[in-house]
Amino acid sequence: MSELFDAVLAAGAVRDEVSDAAWLRALLDVEAALAGAGADAGLVPREHADRIAEVCREGYFDLAEIGAKAAGVGNPAAPLVRELTAKVGGEAARYVHFGATSQDVMDSAAMLLATRAMEPLLDDIEAAAEHAARLASEHASTVQAGRTLLQQALPVTFGFTAAGWLSGLDSAAERLRAQRFAAQLGGASGTLASLGGHGLQVLAAFSRRLGLAEPALPWHTERSRIGELAGALGELCGVIGGISRTITLLAQTEVGEVAEVAEGSGGSSTMPHKRNPVAAVAAQAAAQQAPGLVSTLLAAMTQEHQRAAGSWHAEWRPLTELFRSAGSAAHWLRTSLERLRVDAERMRANLDLTGGAVLSERVTTELAPRAGRLAAHDAVTACTKRALAGEGTLADLLARDPLVGKNLSRQRIGQLLDPADYLGSARIFVDRALAAHDKRKGGQ
Amino acid sequence: MSELFDAVLAAGAVRDEVSDAAWLRALLDVEAALAGAGADAGLVPREHADRIAEVCREGYFDLAEIGAKAAGVGNPAAPLVRELTAKVGGEAARYVHFGATSQDVMDSAAMLLATRAMEPLLDDIEAAAEHAARLASEHASTVQAGRTLLQQALPVTFGFTAAGWLSGLDSAAERLRAQRFAAQLGGASGTLASLGGHGLQVLAAFSRRLGLAEPALPWHTERSRIGELAGALGELCGVIGGISRTITLLAQTEVGEVAEVAEGSGGSSTMPHKRNPVAAVAAQAAAQQAPGLVSTLLAAMTQEHQRAAGSWHAEWRPLTELFRSAGSAAHWLRTSLERLRVDAERMRANLDLTGGAVLSERVTTELAPRAGRLAAHDAVTACTKRALAGEGTLADLLARDPLVGKNLSRQRIGQLLDPADYLGSARIFVDRALAAHDKRKGGQ
Amino acid sequence: MSELFDAVLAAGAVRDEVSDAAWLRALLDVEAALAGAGADAGLVPREHADRIAEVCREGYFDLAEIGAKAAGVGNPAAPLVRELTAKVGGEAARYVHFGATSQDVMDSAAMLLATRAMEPLLDDIEAAAEHAARLASEHASTVQAGRTLLQQALPVTFGFTAAGWLSGLDSAAERLRAQRFAAQLGGASGTLASLGGHGLQVLAAFSRRLGLAEPALPWHTERSRIGELAGALGELCGVIGGISRTITLLAQTEVGEVAEVAEGSGGSSTMPHKRNPVAAVAAQAAAQQAPGLVSTLLAAMTQEHQRAAGSWHAEWRPLTELFRSAGSAAHWLRTSLERLRVDAERMRANLDLTGGAVLSERVTTELAPRAGRLAAHDAVTACTKRALAGEGTLADLLARDPLVGKNLSRQRIGQLLDPADYLGSARIFVDRALAAHDKRKGGQ
Amino acid sequence: MSELFDAVLAAGAVRDEVSDAAWLRALLDVEAALAGAGADAGLVPREHADRIAEVCREGYFDLAEIGAKAAGVGNPAAPLVRELTAKVGGEAARYVHFGATSQDVMDSAAMLLATRAMEPLLDDIEAAAEHAARLASEHASTVQAGRTLLQQALPVTFGFTAAGWLSGLDSAAERLRAQRFAAQLGGASGTLASLGGHGLQVLAAFSRRLGLAEPALPWHTERSRIGELAGALGELCGVIGGISRTITLLAQTEVGEVAEVAEGSGGSSTMPHKRNPVAAVAAQAAAQQAPGLVSTLLAAMTQEHQRAAGSWHAEWRPLTELFRSAGSAAHWLRTSLERLRVDAERMRANLDLTGGAVLSERVTTELAPRAGRLAAHDAVTACTKRALAGEGTLADLLARDPLVGKNLSRQRIGQLLDPADYLGSARIFVDRALAAHDKRKGGQ
Repeated sequence: MSELFDAVLAAGAVRDEVSDAAWLRALLDVEAALAGAGADAGLVPREHADRIAEVCREGYFDLAEIGAKAAGVGNPAAPLVRELTAKVGGEAARYVHFGATSQDVMDSAAMLLATRAMEPLLDDIEAAAEHAARLASEHASTVQAGRTLLQQALPVTFGFTAAGWLSGLDSAAERLRAQRFAAQLGGASGTLASLGGHGLQVLAAFSRRLGLAEPALPWHTERSRIGELAGALGELCGVIGGISRTITLLAQTEVGEVAEVAEGSGGSSTMPHKRNPVAAVAAQAAAQQAPGLVSTLLAAMTQEHQRAAGSWHAEWRPLTELFRSAGSAAHWLRTSLERLRVDAERMRANLDLTGGAVLSERVTTELAPRAGRLAAHDAVTACTKRALAGEGTLADLLARDPLVGKNLSRQRIGQLLDPADYLGSARIFVDRALAAHDKRKGGQ
Repeated sequence: MSELFDAVLAAGAVRDEVSDAAWLRALLDVEAALAGAGADAGLVPREHADRIAEVCREGYFDLAEIGAKAAGVGNPAAPLVRELTAKVGGEAARYVHFGATSQDVMDSAAMLLATRAMEPLLDDIEAAAEHAARLASEHASTVQAGRTLLQQALPVTFGFTAAGWLSGLDSAAERLRAQRFAAQLGGASGTLASLGGHGLQVLAAFSRRLGLAEPALPWHTERSRIGELAGALGELCGVIGGISRTITLLAQTEVGEVAEVAEGSGGSSTMPHKRNPVAAVAAQAAAQQAPGLVSTLLAAMTQEHQRAAGSWHAEWRPLTELFRSAGSAAHWLRTSLERLRVDAERMRANLDLTGGAVLSERVTTELAPRAGRLAAHDAVTACTKRALAGEGTLADLLARDPLVGKNLSRQRIGQLLDPADYLGSARIFVDRALAAHDKRKGGQ
Repeated sequence: MSELFDAVLAAGAVRDEVSDAAWLRALLDVEAALAGAGADAGLVPREHADRIAEVCREGYFDLAEIGAKAAGVGNPAAPLVRELTAKVGGEAARYVHFGATSQDVMDSAAMLLATRAMEPLLDDIEAAAEHAARLASEHASTVQAGRTLLQQALPVTFGFTAAGWLSGLDSAAERLRAQRFAAQLGGASGTLASLGGHGLQVLAAFSRRLGLAEPALPWHTERSRIGELAGALGELCGVIGGISRTITLLAQTEVGEVAEVAEGSGGSSTMPHKRNPVAAVAAQAAAQQAPGLVSTLLAAMTQEHQRAAGSWHAEWRPLTELFRSAGSAAHWLRTSLERLRVDAERMRANLDLTGGAVLSERVTTELAPRAGRLAAHDAVTACTKRALAGEGTLADLLARDPLVGKNLSRQRIGQLLDPADYLGSARIFVDRALAAHDKRKGGQ
Repeated sequence: MSELFDAVLAAGAVRDEVSDAAWLRALLDVEAALAGAGADAGLVPREHADRIAEVCREGYFDLAEIGAKAAGVGNPAAPLVRELTAKVGGEAARYVHFGATSQDVMDSAAMLLATRAMEPLLDDIEAAAEHAARLASEHASTVQAGRTLLQQALPVTFGFTAAGWLSGLDSAAERLRAQRFAAQLGGASGTLASLGGHGLQVLAAFSRRLGLAEPALPWHTERSRIGELAGALGELCGVIGGISRTITLLAQTEVGEVAEVAEGSGGSSTMPHKRNPVAAVAAQAAAQQAPGLVSTLLAAMTQEHQRAAGSWHAEWRPLTELFRSAGSAAHWLRTSLERLRVDAERMRANLDLTGGAVLSERVTTELAPRAGRLAAHDAVTACTKRALAGEGTLADLLARDPLVGKNLSRQRIGQLLDPADYLGSARIFVDRALAAHDKRKGGQ
């Protein structure tokens, strides 16, 4: 939460869903739900529960004061409860935070926050996926150099490249949708002792009111939900990292196959040729935050007994930051894809940089049965080297080569060296990725 | 793979499923499946496919030599293919590695390895879960001090503690069972260009033969499967870390509530009183490896274009190590739980260390309506402080206190201070965890 | 920067040195120094430099607006420069940001921030070290159970334990003091091209004005300084993590050897026996943030060409957070040690929990030459087991044992089982740690 | 330690210094030094110490057997000591492992290993640095496009780029040379109790014999040395990551400014145009391992009391792996730089891709005082856009532009657009980096 950096590193709408204000809102919603659940179970007079809910709804709390008081006990829920109790006043005050412990409130609020952050996060992922789908569809026939280890390899289409992006985004979204968001309620040691025989009834009502799953038992130190959520956000950032890296590479001055084109962004006033892919760069920067944050959350899963001395508290920062980073990564990727201008001609031209050499193997393969494997290989390699040395186009050199020329027509050579003629199942793969995407959308 | 450390840090059967030999086996199985799939699609004469499969099955390859040659090209699949081709010989040799690229073979082998490692891993997790279930069931009524921030809090039962362990292990196992293990086949740039119109057919047969899912499209740089697998293994280690930490804490000399009892293990010949919980300590050490390894794998998801320059290669070590660590953690936790002797009397005795103070709040609560909230609080607090100072048992002091004694009988005071009388829903939570566990087992 | 969590997770004075306001101040200080250095080199008219410095000093900038505009170019320095230029106005405006690039300003500001944050950080570390030194000195003779793998082992003194804390804190402080904080100035591509032949002169004056080292050459993508700083902060947090963990363990209800005693902190109104070591817990939570943040910064060192596409931007958040976490960890550890009450009697009593068994080996050693090694071992082991089973004190049982009693007097047995008599070099080690500490202080 | 992957991921000579065999050797060297130190202090008869040293020197131990037995106690030192004791036999056997605990031996061996691994590691770093120095020197005048955010920016020289590499390698080497490698000796609880009044004397002799620093006090749970070493290795890998990434980018087909040229490496038989920078790719893959491993070691610094339950054991794997990875990264970077062929013509040609646009700002700057700032900017921008659109060279278009042509001669325009004329302090920076390098070498 930095006014200076958030526009770059915590862009998008997720940020607001995990802000201090959002935490406060969630903590109050949890207290309201708790009072309501107590009333549902007959433990709290309905009017008192209503009074508590009303004060929670109003939400006139001084964040800074509550935060400052957190130092005394180690978490902000305790001072909030004290403040809430004071505000509620009267008889109803006795029913505030009824049967709960601070961690119940903090954990339930974190889960609530997570469900709320998930909406704008999925919005951005889905919008990015739609852009990827559009690019995959529009450029299903746009030939592009395949690149392995940053060297040109056999041709692909840009649609095929984008289909891979789509597939990754869809997978990441699916994982996020499958998260287990559960309420937390156990009281001091997790047994709901102070609720007597009504514990389960309150737990059920409490979970229902919050729209969270009811856990089989409290999970104060069983943090698999947190670890799983962290993993899913980390996976998303990994997917975004790969896509945004590829975009910045394709946007290099020397490659120039894509560019981010946007009003008022990335252009350099002093260097008009320079088009910084600011959105992809920012997506990259945000995505890079995830592995470290995930590792902190996984390491913090080592929680002992009924409430951990430190590892629980250690979750709040990285979980919040992970949401902010993932949200920013998704937002910036969406923005980058939105802005993306594809230069199909440049894609075709780049393929010619190697004078057809990427496809020379095809000629060898066709030539081998007629001219012998070794002789075919040697002849084609020689021509390729000459082409790379600038002695002519590969097609011409091959046509003029005695061995090749004798066995293959100029036209056939041209066809063999045509990238568009050697795309294998690229188109089908694009269709499959699009179909899977449509099916996922239908199934939501 | 260290003869010196593996017995501690890579114990259990998973290690063998990700060894060099297992990798070689998987690579050869993949080449055999590829040839077979080529034959299924009519691209490879059946007898040649059979010949290739036969040589793969025999597996007479020099690991060290292949490994050494990997330096030249950057991966071991390429030299293995050369060696395999030489061994196959004749016409059939031309069909070795037909249409595939090194990454196809490496990725498919990694997935195969993962499915194979999953079996002993799940075995150990399930065995550990069964032990946890047994402990939860047997000790559903064994009272124990709940502990928050390492301080005694309201009582729980050891069965309730163990039920939390069970729940975590079940969740982790469920995540592992939900992994998406898919074959990889795309050829040089992922388009299966060299298979012409038969790409999809070969891909389907290849996947089927390996018992792996058929991906919608190649995933050479779409690494969500790897990231997801890493996350699931990290989550498992986090769960194990929490349980094993709790065990070492319960086994402290000053706590003494559990001990690992095993033949020839952990005893100190010079200090007979010392019973090192070696298995839990080793589980902890193995589990701690995961967060860093997961972060390496998540960071390596940033893969560009059609094959990454480094990030792909960066996966092999941490993925292998993560399986070894997770396997070791699961094995040692299973062992620790197997060895665990529970000292129910010590659990009860430890609760008395605070002279009943953990339950003094109950007395206050019952006293308040009769004696006034403040007066009740003050009287009980005074007695509690005297009890903690060693002036007598809390029950006696309370009974002798004028205000308390007047309002509550000695018997009622005893009941209120009885931990077994204040366990809330602990028993029900145990039952719910056991029921969920049984249901999961049934559903497998 | 969270009002809700900072009192717990970003306590202490370091936080303010890396706040948004501190960043803005540092950025403006850098621009002022740049103008001044330009004037020193005769490139900028002195009155213009003064005008720029004046506007920078006043610092009337709208953080939120600058932050928001950062989205357009990817960093906040660029909009700040635009704003500053506008405010300066007139002729002088042409000399704002003279010859520099955004990264020059951001990196130099980060280094400035780091030197400023180092002061309160070292203050807290040194205060904590002084407390550790005091404890080491005061308790140089306070016997305590040594504990290995959480089991009681041979005795130590609490002073010896504290001397280890002191040593760790001193090492960490020394590393932090050895950091290389250098200015950054290179212009667009790092060559200082726009400064013509005056580049070096400006660089020297700029560095001098900022109180930062002058680098041999720009380090826009040579991030060893950042990596080294991250490592030093991570090392500090590791040291604090170990100490704070030990404190929470010693403060356990069942161990009770130390307690944090503070006004209005950690006490539970409903559970008067419960004294949560809140400061040590918070120190632990903060220290746990470091490994992940360090890994993010180390991974971000992979910066290409003359300015990285993402990895540079990826540093800002984790570097800020790492300072905040390290500062909080140091603050809370200092607080915990300040609050620490040591219960020497409980330390002595805990040693008796094993009835002298930790020292039984001494009896064996003394007995062996007289009674034979095996016989001595068997006799002592038998007595120890009986003592652990509660049949009497070990001294009595040994004295009554025929073999032992014949060879060793009751008094000698008592001496051999006296922890204070078997402390080896503990006292000397304490003295050495204190001497090293004093020497370090003298050498600052 | 994998025969299949080590040639790629653990290349170079460091691997052998941290192998199982190297660990065994170090453990035995430690035991020999311990016996010798005991004799030096008069506690161990010299002939017995000699006998122990002799058996240690011979080193006939079964690694696999010792490793297997480690499972029982949790570390391999204990079974090794038992085995060594048996082999020594006779009276001397009583003096094996005299006064030490397993962790003393393991930690001292680890430090010994580290000093031994440092030699080949520094060899490779220095060799790489020499190559970087050579490239910096040879190409001090080779103009190259500076690149920021992967877009061409103002020109640099390749020598300047290489000087940055040199500077990073020198810094990393300096950090590694500054490591504190200390012996470890404390006995069961760290007090050297069993050595009576001779503890310090033995510690001094032991340290001297191992060539390790004598620590002020035992550091069984004070792990700043390990954390610091981890940080230094991580920093090295970060530096290597940046250089190797830049190399792979410069080697892209579309950039082609460098290539790794080596016998039998990286060439694709089927794609002769393809020159995979295998060494740089492998360096990248190895360097990427470090952040996760460092984070594991930093997290494992949280060690409690006198010996940690898990965190100590958790160090062995990542420390070994970190050395292997750093060694491999350094080896591969050295190899890559050795193989590097620089294409100065291509560097020059790439600069022309933007038709001089990167330098258009120079024209604006010179034009502004004569033609007015805004008019100058507009005119130059218009020409630049036309040049980028292919309407002519920028120089021609500018010369033909009425405003520009009137104020600047064709020759002056040419000079302003000449990259070699706008390199600022690039040459001086190269010289400074070379001078610093020479000075460091002299100072070793």
